[in-house]
Amino acid sequence: MSSSYFSFTIEAECSRTWARAGTIDTPHGTIRTPIFMPVGTQATVKSVSPEELGAAGVQILLANTYHLMLRPGSELIAELGGLHSFMHWDGPILTDSGGFQVFSLGHLRKLSEEGAVFKSHLDGSAHLLTPESVMRIEAELGADIILPLDICAAYPCSPLEAQEAMERTHRWSERALEAKERYRPEQTLFGIVQGAFEPVLREQSARFVGTLPFPGLSIGGLSVGEPKQMMWDMLHYTTPALPRNKPRHLLGVGSPEDLVIGVGLGMDMFDCVLPTRVARHGGLFTSHGRINIKAARFRTVHGPIQDGCDCYTCRNYSAAYVHHLARTEEQLYYRLGSIHNIRFMLCLANQLREAIIAGSYPAFRDEFIACYIPTSEAMREAQREKWKAARRM
Amino acid sequence: MSSSYFSFTIEAECSRTWARAGTIDTPHGTIRTPIFMPVGTQATVKSVSPEELGAAGVQILLANTYHLMLRPGSELIAELGGLHSFMHWDGPILTDSGGFQVFSLGHLRKLSEEGAVFKSHLDGSAHLLTPESVMRIEAELGADIILPLDICAAYPCSPLEAQEAMERTHRWSERALEAKERYRPEQTLFGIVQGAFEPVLREQSARFVGTLPFPGLSIGGLSVGEPKQMMWDMLHYTTPALPRNKPRHLLGVGSPEDLVIGVGLGMDMFDCVLPTRVARHGGLFTSHGRINIKAARFRTVHGPIQDGCDCYTCRNYSAAYVHHLARTEEQLYYRLGSIHNIRFMLCLANQLREAIIAGSYPAFRDEFIACYIPTSEAMREAQREKWKAARRM
Repeated sequence: MSSSYFSFTIEAECSRTWARAGTIDTPHGTIRTPIFMPVGTQATVKSVSPEELGAAGVQILLANTYHLMLRPGSELIAELGGLHSFMHWDGPILTDSGGFQVFSLGHLRKLSEEGAVFKSHLDGSAHLLTPESVMRIEAELGADIILPLDICAAYPCSPLEAQEAMERTHRWSERALEAKERYRPEQTLFGIVQGAFEPVLREQSARFVGTLPFPGLSIGGLSVGEPKQMMWDMLHYTTPALPRNKPRHLLGVGSPEDLVIGVGLGMDMFDCVLPTRVARHGGLFTSHGRINIKAARFRTVHGPIQDGCDCYTCRNYSAAYVHHLARTEEQLYYRLGSIHNIRFMLCLANQLREAIIAGSYPAFRDEFIACYIPTSEAMREAQREKWKAARRM
Repeated sequence: MSSSYFSFTIEAECSRTWARAGTIDTPHGTIRTPIFMPVGTQATVKSVSPEELGAAGVQILLANTYHLMLRPGSELIAELGGLHSFMHWDGPILTDSGGFQVFSLGHLRKLSEEGAVFKSHLDGSAHLLTPESVMRIEAELGADIILPLDICAAYPCSPLEAQEAMERTHRWSERALEAKERYRPEQTLFGIVQGAFEPVLREQSARFVGTLPFPGLSIGGLSVGEPKQMMWDMLHYTTPALPRNKPRHLLGVGSPEDLVIGVGLGMDMFDCVLPTRVARHGGLFTSHGRINIKAARFRTVHGPIQDGCDCYTCRNYSAAYVHHLARTEEQLYYRLGSIHNIRFMLCLANQLREAIIAGSYPAFRDEFIACYIPTSEAMREAQREKWKAARRM
């Protein structure tokens, strides 16, 4: 799939899984896939500078349309030269559509065929988002890849609700494609596949959205509270129905183990706040799983968080110092922890790519899963609840 | 004054004031005076990395013995290779004695000729600091310049209290000098001048401590709540009684206007949390005074915080973006604001140095004071109270 502003080429495909390695070209640079995209919700990846993102191997960022349209406002960002200039990041950026946040953060007031009316979580003011207005807002933000307004069904939901949400998302997709024509040709609009947790709908949505003239596809509606296995099951119905030549973005998914498994299920792009959020709470990634740097056992550790890690943190600081900063809640900790986890994700994406090219992805995956102890389902649920509670404060 | 580990040479002196420009050599590098030293209380200058400090022109840092002895402990820091290695800062470091914090942060339990027993503000555990134990602790931390245990009299206090505190500080100074002999010769011990707000005591302390074999002198007991003019008055009694050939450090003082005035009263070194603390609350320095970046008027400002400023923040970000980060309480704001203010202080110190060398310090001082609107006494007092209240929480 290519245009003068966007192209995706596949360099290697795994013979035993759906994994592939490719290259995406955008107006702000090239992206080698599979890729992890850190999230800069409010036009900043929390506590990390653009130079540090670059040094950690970041190739593309995701920013949240919902947050930025409310504050500081997309018109202001346009006036200041667009998101790239505003946040001093010259690489590719992807903006989501705001749809997910309208349902999860904002207070949805009215959902109709026209669009969604919601109350801002900041000041209670009412806003209308339509497939058309989202195209205008994202044009003002100026990201390289943009997403259309969609409806993310709740988990759990009835099959009928799932179908209605999907069908409306499809109709909105067509409206978005039409509206986008009025704005910036250098922006690339991805389609969003929905279908909740209904295998038939997932396949149907993949086929429908996959045939529309979107140069890439985001898989939405997953990682919304369901068990992990259920998410992977849905990809089993989705991926075979997707066109081969378009990059596939798994929206809002991105723990280390998710990346490794998702790649095998045909996903090329991943974004998630998890690596930076867990870092801020002391959770740092190592090849054996996530450690808690605040644990007393790190108090006297002379060596780095992970032996052999080439991130800024591990090259310059002992685990004991990072532990000290975390325990004393020093701001430098949040930065050092986030940089380490971001670098871990980018290294992992690169290792996956190399394994795919070398034809050894299945072995890499199996070895990773054998070594890396993931956070348990129960722990994940407890963390999610804790985070939700903190957000309500 | 020089040894193989420490030397101070004066390169220029103002003919109309007591200002001078000099060079200090330490085992970790050279310091050009006058100089501002940012404070890294817990072995980190809040939110700024060592590389960023270097890029902002920082030549020497101050770290707090009181905080570090309690957490993570000076023995552990020694075991990890000392403060320089622990915090990844290879330039000169000065550690204070902990005395001031024992009186202001800790809960003093018993003050005797032997030393001070206090309860930790962290866990209530009891600790004894003596002039001798402080020398051991600072040897473990391993800073280039260290200070002896002193007694900072409260403001206000009676003349008798002031005299007793001063005389005990003098006796402790002699004990510290003797104890220091047992530890690291590459560390340089400065003396501390006290005398509260009694002109006669200030002069007496300057003469007494000035003649002891300290290669440098710190002026303590000022900026503890008294009006600014009273602080400057005390320096009028102190400076003429100090030896010319030793560097003079004004402890805990360091707003932009303090630096400009203090230099004319013979001070060479300044340290203060103020530039980084006010930055975290939105207060950023410009040549016309302190601005509040959170103010609505910065919402749409395309240009930098200060035209012509060469700091990382001003070179790369609009005032509008910094305003956005401050308003949304993003961590990157604290970093960008702190870097700007630190760079401002270091540029100012360098401008003062160049003016002294050029023989134009008085004109520079008068022009700066005419342009720079300092924060009013009332505002300063209100901020201090706010900060104290926040600290108690």
